[in-house]
Amino acid sequence: MSSQKVNVAEYLFTRLYQLGVKDLHGVPGDFNLVALDYVEPCGINWVGNCNELNAGYAADAYGRLLGMGALVTTFGLTQDAELSCLNAIAGSFAEFCPVVHIVGTPKRAAQKSGMLLHHTLGNGDFNVFADMSKPISIAQTNLMDPATAPAEIDRVLQACYVNSRPVYIQLPADMVTEEVDAKLLDTPIVIEPPPSDHETENLAAELILRKLYAAKRPALLLDAGAQRHRVEDLTEQFARKTGLPTFITPMGKGVANEESPLFAGIYIGKGSEDDVRTMIEDSDLVITIGNVKSDVNSFGFSYRISRLSSVDLHFDHVVMDCAKFENVYMKWLLERLVKEVDPSKMTMDKVETPLRKTSQLTNGYATTQDVTHDWLWPRMSSWLRSGDVVVTETGTSFVGIWETRFPTGVQAINQTLWSSIGYGVGAAQGAALAMKTSGGLRRTVCFEGDGSFQLTAQELSTIIRQDLDCIIFLIENDGYEIERWVHGMKAKYNDISKWRYNKIAEVFTPEEEASRHRVRSYKVSTRSELEDLLADENFSAGKGLHFVELHMPKYNAPQTLIDFAQSLSKKSE
Amino acid sequence: MSSQKVNVAEYLFTRLYQLGVKDLHGVPGDFNLVALDYVEPCGINWVGNCNELNAGYAADAYGRLLGMGALVTTFGLTQDAELSCLNAIAGSFAEFCPVVHIVGTPKRAAQKSGMLLHHTLGNGDFNVFADMSKPISIAQTNLMDPATAPAEIDRVLQACYVNSRPVYIQLPADMVTEEVDAKLLDTPIVIEPPPSDHETENLAAELILRKLYAAKRPALLLDAGAQRHRVEDLTEQFARKTGLPTFITPMGKGVANEESPLFAGIYIGKGSEDDVRTMIEDSDLVITIGNVKSDVNSFGFSYRISRLSSVDLHFDHVVMDCAKFENVYMKWLLERLVKEVDPSKMTMDKVETPLRKTSQLTNGYATTQDVTHDWLWPRMSSWLRSGDVVVTETGTSFVGIWETRFPTGVQAINQTLWSSIGYGVGAAQGAALAMKTSGGLRRTVCFEGDGSFQLTAQELSTIIRQDLDCIIFLIENDGYEIERWVHGMKAKYNDISKWRYNKIAEVFTPEEEASRHRVRSYKVSTRSELEDLLADENFSAGKGLHFVELHMPKYNAPQTLIDFAQSLSKKSE
Repeated sequence: MSSQKVNVAEYLFTRLYQLGVKDLHGVPGDFNLVALDYVEPCGINWVGNCNELNAGYAADAYGRLLGMGALVTTFGLTQDAELSCLNAIAGSFAEFCPVVHIVGTPKRAAQKSGMLLHHTLGNGDFNVFADMSKPISIAQTNLMDPATAPAEIDRVLQACYVNSRPVYIQLPADMVTEEVDAKLLDTPIVIEPPPSDHETENLAAELILRKLYAAKRPALLLDAGAQRHRVEDLTEQFARKTGLPTFITPMGKGVANEESPLFAGIYIGKGSEDDVRTMIEDSDLVITIGNVKSDVNSFGFSYRISRLSSVDLHFDHVVMDCAKFENVYMKWLLERLVKEVDPSKMTMDKVETPLRKTSQLTNGYATTQDVTHDWLWPRMSSWLRSGDVVVTETGTSFVGIWETRFPTGVQAINQTLWSSIGYGVGAAQGAALAMKTSGGLRRTVCFEGDGSFQLTAQELSTIIRQDLDCIIFLIENDGYEIERWVHGMKAKYNDISKWRYNKIAEVFTPEEEASRHRVRSYKVSTRSELEDLLADENFSAGKGLHFVELHMPKYNAPQTLIDFAQSLSKKSE
Repeated sequence: MSSQKVNVAEYLFTRLYQLGVKDLHGVPGDFNLVALDYVEPCGINWVGNCNELNAGYAADAYGRLLGMGALVTTFGLTQDAELSCLNAIAGSFAEFCPVVHIVGTPKRAAQKSGMLLHHTLGNGDFNVFADMSKPISIAQTNLMDPATAPAEIDRVLQACYVNSRPVYIQLPADMVTEEVDAKLLDTPIVIEPPPSDHETENLAAELILRKLYAAKRPALLLDAGAQRHRVEDLTEQFARKTGLPTFITPMGKGVANEESPLFAGIYIGKGSEDDVRTMIEDSDLVITIGNVKSDVNSFGFSYRISRLSSVDLHFDHVVMDCAKFENVYMKWLLERLVKEVDPSKMTMDKVETPLRKTSQLTNGYATTQDVTHDWLWPRMSSWLRSGDVVVTETGTSFVGIWETRFPTGVQAINQTLWSSIGYGVGAAQGAALAMKTSGGLRRTVCFEGDGSFQLTAQELSTIIRQDLDCIIFLIENDGYEIERWVHGMKAKYNDISKWRYNKIAEVFTPEEEASRHRVRSYKVSTRSELEDLLADENFSAGKGLHFVELHMPKYNAPQTLIDFAQSLSKKSE
């Protein structure tokens, strides 16, 4: 009795499909071509990016939205190159994004004999690329044996999903067609975190509740980890049941319900508004969920929260009272706190949450028609719609968006920690595709800078080719504005080449597509022009690609960014 | 008596200038901005690339032409990212190109304390990026101490130049302005290889001459190493003095004088023309200079040269009679052979060198007006001019060019070993800039593919911004032709998005530049249209940027590429 067989590639892609990967990013190349034959038969859409770096950014954003993203590259080089997307994968690792990186490699025999193939360093060492990927992936496997391949695939995919971090799979060209037992696919991969250590979790929960009942000015601070480890709903239940005033960090943008009466603002260390800062820093119990203390996220490490008055829930541990409680998973602990907390035992003072102000910044441009940052970001609050995905580029946008108040259910995508400039266009492609795949009802809105756009501009053509819905605001201000504020305000090296941005979408639109009017470009220089555009429902419905060249004054930037850049400047000089 | 001081950045850039780096590639970023202030005062032109990968490709080509190339990126990420150019640096390492990679890093104190800065993996490990660079650089230094900085800079720059391979320099932001002794700059860095081991060199020279005098059918086979280790002149002197028939490999394209009566053709293993193959494989002494036995270069390792009848001169050693003679430098050994060889003692048979044929391939398109590969490449032989730099992209071009006979002094630039698709545009920018810097008298001609162009298209804007002279032929054939021949001839994944290529140069040209007519685009679909264009001296003089969208039939490729791709296909399936 022989059981039914599937090829290794089919096994892998079917597992990806089961985990939510309906679209596969990447670039074809010598050693992955045979595997690519299996993509569409497995029901997965092949994206075909312009290059690997962009494919990596796109898979990252896709993974943030749908639980897992994946890309395929080929062994050791560029169109084709796993190396070219290392920066994207490193970003996914740093930012806790679940990305599966599949690399097509030479046949097993060639690997074993150490042949001097193209895309090797010429020394016959096939492991050098895998070694480079090690520090930026949570699990790796080289599928050299059909007997162990299914278990290996399951192991790394589980690690990717559960830890919300990249994994690395080497698929030798001649393994693609090896056969494995199809029945294994009937057992789903477990995607829940493992159970906590029972006694430690008991103790942690008891300590936290005791602190909570005693606290007079408690607060909840939500960060990126809450989104990455998929506890946003639990977090909101906990906030609602306890009535804790709820704050977010910059990386936590989009995690809290900003329309809730409990929402109290964004805490950015010394970059915060005064009343937000006071409430957090004077609090006698700050419960943080998934906090990441990077420089941007903490405004240059300027958090002033005493370790004695904070409880930090991380993916697999809790920190409080200067001690680490290991093997206590955020998800199970939160589930338990939601169930066990007794609001009648709480003794907190009655407080007004500081209504988050729209920006009060003023500057020389405030009385003009110029589109300035102090005007733009608060203005976006009422234009955004519930359910929008908002991608902001590293630079003025990812700071500017802190001044926008999100409607319920808006999701933010950016790289606050890793800060790759150029992330925006690729991420917008990945996000827009995720939205198309999940029904096409939500808008994707991207705020991009001109300098950063020049790094990865070509991926606009993938947005067009995959027929995605996306609104892109390209902020045209003649260069690397964020770098100007760090150092070299008038320096030539912070200027960039002047492109005619409003013609670029046309270049990427095949002539036969042009008549479908799915791609439109705009040039906007004043507030009233922008208002007219926002009022046009053909634009604001967000169907098709809308590419807006938005002129903003050079040397204008969000005040928080200016303050931060100047503090960073002290660090980098 | 205090001696005069210079800042560390000034020291570094002055050393680069002394070694021929008059133009510095790269992208500004947080941790390199202060250093960039020193670039122009040191007499160096700052290029300002669109992204780091392209900057890496450009510096590689620049280094191949002028002896050394350099790029500056910033710690750990994208616009800004050393990681994004790793693939380019790995290519430079594999292909023996002298590239200095300077990375601006955080201040020394921040590095020591392990702060969770942006662009770190969030674990406070600052060395992870340097570690990734180790296998792809011949020397590294982290400039943490002003006392040792000058010696360290000198050490790695010397290693870069002499070995013709990349080096990696970390420059902490607060080291930029530290002071060092200016007088050290008066002592030039030694750029010659070290002396050979005297006895070994004596013995090697004696053995080689003895073999040469006895050989009946000797031949010379020149490869990339001859160019990279700067012995092209010595090689030609040796050929002329001995009268040896001279062959090149694919990677050696451009190394031999193809107009010399001694020039006998290109040896590509079993991909060679019959008479070339016979002459090499029946030879009783093949002297190879700087040979690299990669898969593409040897047509899938199909060399049939007996180890007993070959003598291989490498950078720092010689291989003959199955033995390795170490510490014998190619340069000193060749100098000696040129001086000591006595042609009157040679006993070689009189041979006709096989006149290298123009391609005789025919196919279905041969009687049409279509621009096919079998027609294009031989046609280029008479259009190329002495002194041209010819950049060919990985794909149909870098194989097609084997069918073009070069006039004297044409230099070829491509990645036969590393084979990064997308290398072409960046390399063209670097090459064109090197030509501008060295007087502006030589043309830069680039043959690019459409699929590969999409990876790195934006660097066209740097060619325009730096006001360079360059002719680019963009081969439009709807996709990744080379991959089609490897696997998936009709597969959708080998198709690409249809761009309107003839409009793209316009997008990258600032409006105020458009009237200068330095940028022109063309669309060519037939042989006669191409003939008309080539006959137009406004085009063929090669001043300004000329961007030609050259339509070639889908599924058409050089026969050698088809044969090779099909043999590769067997390896990758």
